[in-house]
Amino acid sequence: MTIDTSRRPDKIRGRKRDTGRTEAILEAAADLLLEVGFDRFRIKDVATRAGSGTGAIYRRWSTKESLIIEAIRNMPVPEAVVTDDPVADLRAIVTPKCVDSAEKPDLVPGLISAMRSDAGIEEAVKEGYSLEYLRSTIARLIGADHPHLDLLTDLTPAIALLRSSFTPESIDPQAMTEEIISLILSVAKPPST
Amino acid sequence: MTIDTSRRPDKIRGRKRDTGRTEAILEAAADLLLEVGFDRFRIKDVATRAGSGTGAIYRRWSTKESLIIEAIRNMPVPEAVVTDDPVADLRAIVTPKCVDSAEKPDLVPGLISAMRSDAGIEEAVKEGYSLEYLRSTIARLIGADHPHLDLLTDLTPAIALLRSSFTPESIDPQAMTEEIISLILSVAKPPST
Repeated sequence: MTIDTSRRPDKIRGRKRDTGRTEAILEAAADLLLEVGFDRFRIKDVATRAGSGTGAIYRRWSTKESLIIEAIRNMPVPEAVVTDDPVADLRAIVTPKCVDSAEKPDLVPGLISAMRSDAGIEEAVKEGYSLEYLRSTIARLIGADHPHLDLLTDLTPAIALLRSSFTPESIDPQAMTEEIISLILSVAKPPST
Repeated sequence: MTIDTSRRPDKIRGRKRDTGRTEAILEAAADLLLEVGFDRFRIKDVATRAGSGTGAIYRRWSTKESLIIEAIRNMPVPEAVVTDDPVADLRAIVTPKCVDSAEKPDLVPGLISAMRSDAGIEEAVKEGYSLEYLRSTIARLIGADHPHLDLLTDLTPAIALLRSSFTPESIDPQAMTEEIISLILSVAKPPST
């Protein structure tokens, strides 16, 4: 890639540095959000993580919410990993969701609260909401035309959300992972009725 | 029923009236909560519904939260209806949850936000949280020792919560009810593996 620096070189170089800094802040914000959740999300922790000053952040985003919205928009869409072991591929998706529901029970309920208190966050989350990577992985196991594919796609995030909201103390992530996977495998053949 | 009014008659009559009024307010508060959710819960609407004044409510509960907490504690535990048609009994539980997820998509996410903002509400909800009526109804269909009974018990409220939080616009309550019931029925026999 070549860049024509013959005109306004300072401006162009400045813009490049600026883009790199902006990207670093957005990635740090996304990482922090997934790690500590919305309640404990602090601009100064984003700054530390991005190796930046808080001033550099506030110059770009005047509020915590506006940074969160852009960080959500900037998050990559999760992609399905495809190996020759579809059960292992499914387990690789289900396990972290079950572990998070026990270890970070505030994460998704906190996201729901944040969506309810800020319309911009709600819009960004709904726009980015996709379970396609989970759906395509389950489809490899039960068939893309299985009548319960939609429901089984929603199963893992739904159970994780319900249990993290109401019964976080009694979650056993490993048992939860296995009960979800075994239910999906048990319905791999369409019901005979 | 006879009441000895020979001693402190005013106090005793007053107490009776007071108990009836308190109960009416708590029931009105619970009904309102289930109808409009936490965000739009207003003391004056409880008063209207209970045929009471707001003063009578504030004398008993100084804050909206304290009234909500006692109203939750006062809610009856749902009981399973048992007819000779267990599928119909299950449908009678699943249908209103699916309808609510479409028509009142704020209800359970609002409950989660309220739990997160008030520790007393969180405690009352968690204490009263029981899916036993749903569990026992599903057990009649798939057996009380079915390996997926726990997961299938959580299925309906979990899916309702996930979809009302993230994709409320696309919920079709009738289709959702049938996909849940057909999944439960399809796993009625334990997997052969």
